Amino acid sequence: MSTPLPSWNDGSTRETLLSFVSSVTTEGASGYVRPEERVAVFDNDGTLWAEQPMYVQALFAIDRVRELAPQHPEWHGRQPFKAILEDDEEALRALSEHDAAALVAATHAGMTTTEFARQARDWLARARHPRFQRPFTRCVYQPMLELLDFLRANGFDLHVVSGGGVDFLRAFCEETYGIPSSHVIGSSGKTRFELRDEGPVLVKLPSLTSLDDGEGKPINIHLHIGKRPLLAFGNSDGDLQMLQYTSAEGHPRLRLLLHHDDAEREYAYDRDARAGRLDRALDVAAHDGWTVVSMRSDWKDVFPVHSLAGERTVAEGQAGTPPRGR
Amino acid sequence: MSTPLPSWNDGSTRETLLSFVSSVTTEGASGYVRPEERVAVFDNDGTLWAEQPMYVQALFAIDRVRELAPQHPEWHGRQPFKAILEDDEEALRALSEHDAAALVAATHAGMTTTEFARQARDWLARARHPRFQRPFTRCVYQPMLELLDFLRANGFDLHVVSGGGVDFLRAFCEETYGIPSSHVIGSSGKTRFELRDEGPVLVKLPSLTSLDDGEGKPINIHLHIGKRPLLAFGNSDGDLQMLQYTSAEGHPRLRLLLHHDDAEREYAYDRDARAGRLDRALDVAAHDGWTVVSMRSDWKDVFPVHSLAGERTVAEGQAGTPPRGR
Repeated sequence: MSTPLPSWNDGSTRETLLSFVSSVTTEGASGYVRPEERVAVFDNDGTLWAEQPMYVQALFAIDRVRELAPQHPEWHGRQPFKAILEDDEEALRALSEHDAAALVAATHAGMTTTEFARQARDWLARARHPRFQRPFTRCVYQPMLELLDFLRANGFDLHVVSGGGVDFLRAFCEETYGIPSSHVIGSSGKTRFELRDEGPVLVKLPSLTSLDDGEGKPINIHLHIGKRPLLAFGNSDGDLQMLQYTSAEGHPRLRLLLHHDDAEREYAYDRDARAGRLDRALDVAAHDGWTVVSMRSDWKDVFPVHSLAGERTVAEGQAGTPPRGR
Repeated sequence: MSTPLPSWNDGSTRETLLSFVSSVTTEGASGYVRPEERVAVFDNDGTLWAEQPMYVQALFAIDRVRELAPQHPEWHGRQPFKAILEDDEEALRALSEHDAAALVAATHAGMTTTEFARQARDWLARARHPRFQRPFTRCVYQPMLELLDFLRANGFDLHVVSGGGVDFLRAFCEETYGIPSSHVIGSSGKTRFELRDEGPVLVKLPSLTSLDDGEGKPINIHLHIGKRPLLAFGNSDGDLQMLQYTSAEGHPRLRLLLHHDDAEREYAYDRDARAGRLDRALDVAAHDGWTVVSMRSDWKDVFPVHSLAGERTVAEGQAGTPPRGR
C-alpha cells in the first residue's frame, strides 16, 4: 500500500490518525477492536464537503423554486418564495422555521422518491459552487477522501450521519465517497406507499419525521447502526452529541472536529457562522481532549487537485469571502 | 464450494433459487446485477425463525411482566398484567391495542438501550420454546440459514426487515444469522439522549415511532437501505407490500413466501393463524407468479439438526399443535 493520507501534513493530527488506526487493527494489542465493531461516522456539511456560503441543499431548494416558479404565479406574493424570486438576501436571511418548512414542502415533497432522486442528481450535475465554479461533488475535501479510503482499507464500517435530507445525500454519497446508500443517515420525512399502474412507489410528504442534528444524531446512529462509533468526525455544534456518544465500551475512541480556519483556500468561521456554527463543541473538545483539525495547518490540499475541464483550481478562486458577506 | 442449499429438497423451488442467483451473478449475462444492487430482504418471524405458538417477543414481554411483578403490586388489578399474572389465556387473546401498548411500555421502555439489550440477551439465553424445548435462537430454519449463506457468498447484501422491535432483533440477529446490527430493520420507539455521570445514554421511551409491518416495510426499506430489493422473502400479509416493492428497475427479481404447511415438524397455518396470517399475500402470489415455498415439500430439515445438549430434536417434539390451541 502507498503512504496513507498524502494530503495531510506531517504533525500531531496525522500522527494521531495513524496511531489510532494502527492500535485498533493490531491483533493481540490491548487496543485491538474486531472489524465488526469498527464503526466510524462522519458528518457531511463542512466535514466531507464545503458548507459555505450556504448549505448545498439550501442552494438546491432555491434553484428548484426558481425552476418551478412559472407553474406557481402565487409564489411572487408569498414568502419564502418571494425573497428567492426577487433575490432579496436580507429577507432570505430572516426566514423563519415556518418559511423553511414551506420551502422544503415545495421542493422536497409531492413527488416519488425516484423522481426526487433524479431531480437532485440532475441538479448536482449542472450546479456550480459560486466561488470555486466547480460541481459541489468536487468541493469535497481531498484529505477526507483519503481518510475514508484509509479507514475502509483497515476494515472500518463507514457511515455518513448528516443533518441533510437522506434522499438528497443519497444522490451523491455512493459515487462521491464510496459509501453505500444503506450507510447514509440523514434527516427524513414521511413517505406514503402507493400502488400505481407502473408499480409501487413511495411519495415524499412534507412532514419531517427525523431531524438528524444535535441529539438526533446519536438517536439515529442507534436506530440505523445499532452500535456506538469508535471514531466520529464533525465540524459544528450539531455534531456535539454524536461525538459525545462515540464511546464504545472498553474500546479506544477518536473524536475529531474540523476547524474551518482557512479563508484563503476555503472559509474561516466557527463561532459566528450561519451554517456550521462551532461554539459549544470547541469548548467541549478542549475539555475532553478531542482532536481539533486545522484546515490551514493540517491539510496540504483542500479540494481534489486534479481539476476537471472548466473548473477553476482552488488557487484561482477568489480569496476568503467571509461567510456572512456573500 | 460444497453443494449449496443441502437442506432444500430437489425440485422447482430449489431450482428457482439456484438459477436466480446464477443469472444475477453471471457477468456478461443479460440478467447480471452488480453486487452494489444485490439487496435481499428477509422478514424474521415465521420466515427465519418460528413464530408459533406466539411471537417470540410477546413471550419475552410476558416473562418480563412476571419477573417485574413483585415491584408492581398494582399490576394484579390491571390489564393486561392481570391476565398474564393469572395465566388467563382467554383474557390474553382478547387484549386490545391499548393493552399491547401498555405491555410494551412496561417491558420495553424506561431503561437505556444498553440495559434493554442485556435483558433481551439474558432472556434469549435461558428461555425455551414451549414445544421444542430449545432456545428460540435454535428454532431458526436450517434451510434459511443455508440460503443466507448462499446469498452472502454470492455478493448479496442481506437485511432483516421485521415487524419485531429493532432492539430486540439486534439481541440475536448478528450472532444467529450473521447479519450485522446496521442491517437489521424493525419497529422502533422514541429514545431520549441523556448525559449521565457514566456517560451519554439513550433511554427507551414508550411511544412507537415506526411500525415495520405492511406498508411500513417498503417505507423503512427506503429509509434504511435506500435501494429496492432484488429478492424478498416473507411469510405473511405483513410482508405483502415489501414483496410488491421488490422490483428494482430493469433487474430480475425473486419474491418468495414461506407457507407453513408442516404440522408434524413445525406448524400448519395460513389464513387462520393469530400470528403470521397469510391471506391476501397468497392470492397475490398466485396472481403475480411469486414463489410459494412449502415447508413440508421443499425442506429436508426444518431446524438445525445438530441439537445442543438438553434440546429435544424436532422429531421428539410433540406433533402439530394447531396455533390457536396452545
